[in-house]
This record gives sequence, structure tokens and C-alpha cells, in this order.
Amino acid sequence: MEIERKYLVRELPANLVEQPHVEIEQGYLCTSPTLRIRKMGDACILTVKEKVRSSTSAIVNREEEFMLPPDRYRMLRAKCEGNLVCKTRYRIALGDGLTAELDIFHGVHDGLRIVEVEFPSTEAADAFMPPVWFGEDVSADPRYRNSYLATCEFKHSI
Amino acid sequence: MEIERKYLVRELPANLVEQPHVEIEQGYLCTSPTLRIRKMGDACILTVKEKVRSSTSAIVNREEEFMLPPDRYRMLRAKCEGNLVCKTRYRIALGDGLTAELDIFHGVHDGLRIVEVEFPSTEAADAFMPPVWFGEDVSADPRYRNSYLATCEFKHSI
Repeated sequence: MEIERKYLVRELPANLVEQPHVEIEQGYLCTSPTLRIRKMGDACILTVKEKVRSSTSAIVNREEEFMLPPDRYRMLRAKCEGNLVCKTRYRIALGDGLTAELDIFHGVHDGLRIVEVEFPSTEAADAFMPPVWFGEDVSADPRYRNSYLATCEFKHSI
Repeated sequence: MEIERKYLVRELPANLVEQPHVEIEQGYLCTSPTLRIRKMGDACILTVKEKVRSSTSAIVNREEEFMLPPDRYRMLRAKCEGNLVCKTRYRIALGDGLTAELDIFHGVHDGLRIVEVEFPSTEAADAFMPPVWFGEDVSADPRYRNSYLATCEFKHSI
């Protein structure tokens, strides 16, 4: 199970370039359930996500991951619907054992920035106080799902 | 985990038409890992299988299943590689709590018949004594994988 909250970004945190980061390319073969292929650094991964339950503030998914050989990744990439989603992901420690994953999008989604935090329980998700550099909570907004982004270009009026 | 053995069929068991059966159509988006869509009766299912380990006689897979809405099934069916595999599956009780799944293939695989038995442990799989109507053990023969069958037509010289 995966329990997370998702926010827009008010301002980029200081010393961002010093944080660990990785290039991500991903695409979607299907959105219900979510059937995603992702290249993260050198690793290619197939992920299937099924929505299990949504509490007031958190997203709860069943999520299963499988390693993909690079040639199969390229074969499946050609079958994806819509656009590929390309982004740089920074991992930023928040304290209390929590980590922010800050995604800075490129290509057709250039200008978009989303930060996600994963929690060990729905109670921890509900109790979370976001840092000042976090913006609007968009956990419940389907327009900021990566699978939705794959179907459209980013517009600043989103 | 799924532990099973697979055989050709020497002769069809008596009173086959009285056994419960279901029509199956399935296709493959990928074979490593196996990414299969299947329509079984009215249910549409996405299955991902990853080979974990192979003992001397049994096949051991990690297998995850997800329900598919019918419209997503049709969308993913159009992305499948090779042929669709169509078959009638009969379920036949063997005693000792074991069930044979006898697949009689149609379409491009007409003439092919395969029977599989799933076991609670690799020890039970190794100890299994097949009924007389079972033929050659093809558990280890990649040509009888459904994912391989999807890439070719059945030839009696297989």
C-alpha cells in the first residue's frame, strides 16, 4: 500500500542542486488500473496501481512493481497512450523520517513542479504540517496525476 | 506464488461436457515479465507474472491480478503482440483437493490440448502421479507457454 500527499511548489528550496536527484521518463499503457512504465536512471520498471480507498486527505493505492529489461521497456513505450512524462526528481529530507520527492517537469510539461510525501499511515498523512516552500495541496485533484498529465500538455492555467 | 505442472492430453476424459467450463480469450503485451490480459466469461483481468524460481518439475511464478473494465480490456487487446489465444477451460476434480484445468484451444491453435494442475507446495508438485488420460509432461517446455503460443500458430509437429 502507498499513502501519500501531493502539493504544488510555492518556491524551490535552497541548495536544491546539492540534493540527490535522478532523471525519470514514464508513460502509461492504461489508466484504470494504472499500468505505468518508467525509466529511472538506468532502471526500467513496470508498475501496476489500483486505487483501493481514499481518505479525506491521502491517496491509498495497491502498487506492484516488476523489473523490465531495457528492450521490453522500449517496446512497451511505443504502446503508451498520450505523451511521455519527463522530470527530474529530487529527494529532500523533511525530518521525522519523512522525505519529499520534488518533481521538476520537462518537455510538454515544462514549468510544472509537484512535491509528494509518502507516509507510514493515514494518521501520519492527516497530521502532516507542510514546510513553507510547499504550495496548494492537490492530493485530491485528478489534473495533477501523472497519468492525467500524460494525456495533455501543461498549461499555466491548469 | 503459483506452483503448477503442465501436460499434453493423451485422451479426453469421459463425460467432459458435464464438467464446468468457461470460454477464455487472452493476449500478451509483453513476455518478460508476462503482461497478460484475459477475458474469462464476463470478467476481464490483467495479470503480471514474473518467474521467480524453477524446481526440477514445477513452475514457480510471482503472479499479481487486477480487474480490468471491459473498455480498457478492448483498448489493451489492440496493443497485444502476436495472436490472441482462445480456449475452452474445463475444471476437473482429481481427488486429494487437486483440480485439473484442461484447455482445449480454438482458432489458430485448433487441435492443441493442455492440462495444468496447481499445487500447494513444490513437494506436492514433485509427488504428483498424473491420471492415465494425461500425456507428456511439458512443464519445462517453453513452446507450450501460452505467451509463446501467442507468437505462433499451432502445428501438429510442435
